[in-house]
Amino acid sequence: MRLAGRVAHMTGGGSDGWEVYYKARARIAAGERILNLSIGEHDIPTDASILKAMHDGALAGSTGYTVGAGKAELRDLIAARVEARTGVRTTRDNVIVTPGGQAALFSAHMVLLDTGDRALYCDPYYATYPGTIRATGAEAVAIATRPERAFRPDPEAILAKAEGARTLLITTPNNPTGVIYDRATLEGIARAVREADLWLISDEVYDTQIWEGEHLSPRALPGMAERTIVLGSLSKSHAMTGSRLGWMIAPEAVIAAAVDLATNTTYGTPGFIQDAAVFALNQGAGFEAQIAAPFRRRRELIAPALAGSNRVSIVPSGGGMFVMLDIRATGLSGEAFALRLLDEEGIAVMPGESFGAAAAGHVRVAMTIPDEAFAEALARLGAFADRI
Amino acid sequence: MRLAGRVAHMTGGGSDGWEVYYKARARIAAGERILNLSIGEHDIPTDASILKAMHDGALAGSTGYTVGAGKAELRDLIAARVEARTGVRTTRDNVIVTPGGQAALFSAHMVLLDTGDRALYCDPYYATYPGTIRATGAEAVAIATRPERAFRPDPEAILAKAEGARTLLITTPNNPTGVIYDRATLEGIARAVREADLWLISDEVYDTQIWEGEHLSPRALPGMAERTIVLGSLSKSHAMTGSRLGWMIAPEAVIAAAVDLATNTTYGTPGFIQDAAVFALNQGAGFEAQIAAPFRRRRELIAPALAGSNRVSIVPSGGGMFVMLDIRATGLSGEAFALRLLDEEGIAVMPGESFGAAAAGHVRVAMTIPDEAFAEALARLGAFADRI
Repeated sequence: MRLAGRVAHMTGGGSDGWEVYYKARARIAAGERILNLSIGEHDIPTDASILKAMHDGALAGSTGYTVGAGKAELRDLIAARVEARTGVRTTRDNVIVTPGGQAALFSAHMVLLDTGDRALYCDPYYATYPGTIRATGAEAVAIATRPERAFRPDPEAILAKAEGARTLLITTPNNPTGVIYDRATLEGIARAVREADLWLISDEVYDTQIWEGEHLSPRALPGMAERTIVLGSLSKSHAMTGSRLGWMIAPEAVIAAAVDLATNTTYGTPGFIQDAAVFALNQGAGFEAQIAAPFRRRRELIAPALAGSNRVSIVPSGGGMFVMLDIRATGLSGEAFALRLLDEEGIAVMPGESFGAAAAGHVRVAMTIPDEAFAEALARLGAFADRI
Repeated sequence: MRLAGRVAHMTGGGSDGWEVYYKARARIAAGERILNLSIGEHDIPTDASILKAMHDGALAGSTGYTVGAGKAELRDLIAARVEARTGVRTTRDNVIVTPGGQAALFSAHMVLLDTGDRALYCDPYYATYPGTIRATGAEAVAIATRPERAFRPDPEAILAKAEGARTLLITTPNNPTGVIYDRATLEGIARAVREADLWLISDEVYDTQIWEGEHLSPRALPGMAERTIVLGSLSKSHAMTGSRLGWMIAPEAVIAAAVDLATNTTYGTPGFIQDAAVFALNQGAGFEAQIAAPFRRRRELIAPALAGSNRVSIVPSGGGMFVMLDIRATGLSGEAFALRLLDEEGIAVMPGESFGAAAAGHVRVAMTIPDEAFAEALARLGAFADRI
């Protein structure tokens, strides 16, 4: 029997460059030693203190329905955090708690887009972006960025595709590139968004992992709060990926629509997980710096490890868990490079092509394995690139 | 700025009869004693043994991403449970774990319906049904049922609305009516569904709360497994409403599509909640009977409490947490009756109209307060009906 047309539409079709990921996973499952730099997840579990807060909340009775925008205490905490970081007045009415950042991403596009609308996103992109847009029935339109600009989008490239578009999705700090959008870039984006009368959806889930420069939320730019939706999450900042706790910051009318949608899609976020989130956010900046520290440390290992290589250069990044390496000097595609690196060296990295055509000839390195193994993997990657 | 048209489409608009619910909630919040028979949720929290299993799972490291169909162990348990109850061969490839039954309901309609498709559901209905269908962009089409048939749908009524339809949603045991669809009803539905070439989406989240007769899943009828999606949940069976753990049983191609969709909507269900679900399902039928016992007990109190009333009759039900009372003999609408009952007696019930036009002149009683208070509320409701 026939499924919805949206199913085929959503998945797009065609090769997506994830073969190396599945190959690596199969070899790891078979017991082989693979240096796995392909996964965007901490190498530590969620802290026991957070899990205890969750359990305490559950034992105290936080086990019933929580339909709506989320617990008032948590929404207030998130609003205060956002206001402190952006200077933009933010109340609980600007906040909906969602079961994860992905649910916030989906929700934002669902309440802003109708079937057939055009929705812009930047290439390279986080893996679920085009599928999420297409799941809403909208048309996903890529804005190509260029390695020469560290994959930051040009206002002109946005405007060139803006006809008939309703939304633009950006990510800073960026996954997959680790690049932080500087003020000039964000001002250019804001100008284009206002000119084309778009909603700006700003994915800022890596905003606690800043290694160079500073994170700026476009919601803080003049005239942008009323047309910007910010997506946040505890996954990266608090090593709580599996807890699925995210949020959306938006004008009140958008939040009200998202609450109606949530009633029909998820019926709320577990109360005991919201209790854990309250505890986690109350741990303050010191805790978040501790969660981010391994990535900060490992990032310092990359340049020395690749110093001897003539064929690998580092895309200048400022934050997040990932670094992109430009391997075009090897003459290989990112995919061919990654496949050979896995076969010949037992090192798994993601082909740039997995994140869009704009990242062809690059590979993405996740800084998610212990320091020594990480440095070893990078040094061997550099030597491999020079040898082939 | 403009939101998606789907937002207004989703919420429908017009009065929905929920005023009495919000009024009751406000009076309870203000400290008044209200006998609250409006809420479909256990009056006990999730059992501490289940919460311990969840915490143990989290401490053992079940805190990372779980994108996909769910943990194999849980999917196998759910498959075995469904197979044991229906006799239909069911494997883990027929199962996706979702963050709650509502997410399963949304997912089923998303993978089967495109924008503008017609989707059938039975009136009276569970509150989120039409909004969930409309959130997908489809047209929600009600099949009116009649009190004289205990609100069981007629095959002819289904066929009369089936032109251009892709799906039919049914609920047994039913919310709001508590009615169990008997074999003849389900065979009639199955015949209509096959004749009109529809998918059947069968919401069976109350299948452990059977007071009279037996629960039959339409997936077990001849020729129906390949066109039936069954929705399940631990919310009602294990008093785990706040844990948001549900599932969908379907042909493999539907599950594969739902997994793709979940990647773009929720990115999986927390691993530690899946661990709790494994523990809960392994507690067996005795545990489930214990969770269901209060409703079984309270249901026995209804007929004696209303025996003296000439104006209230009980819709013959067989399962679930709810009973519908026919108050048409009072000459009031369900909404007017419920509002006066709240104002004059401090007793909150839901107007039948909140669940669709077919339940006009009825009120829904939730069996979710302690036995003595429940019996008192029913007796006073009966006396009130006779007096006005």
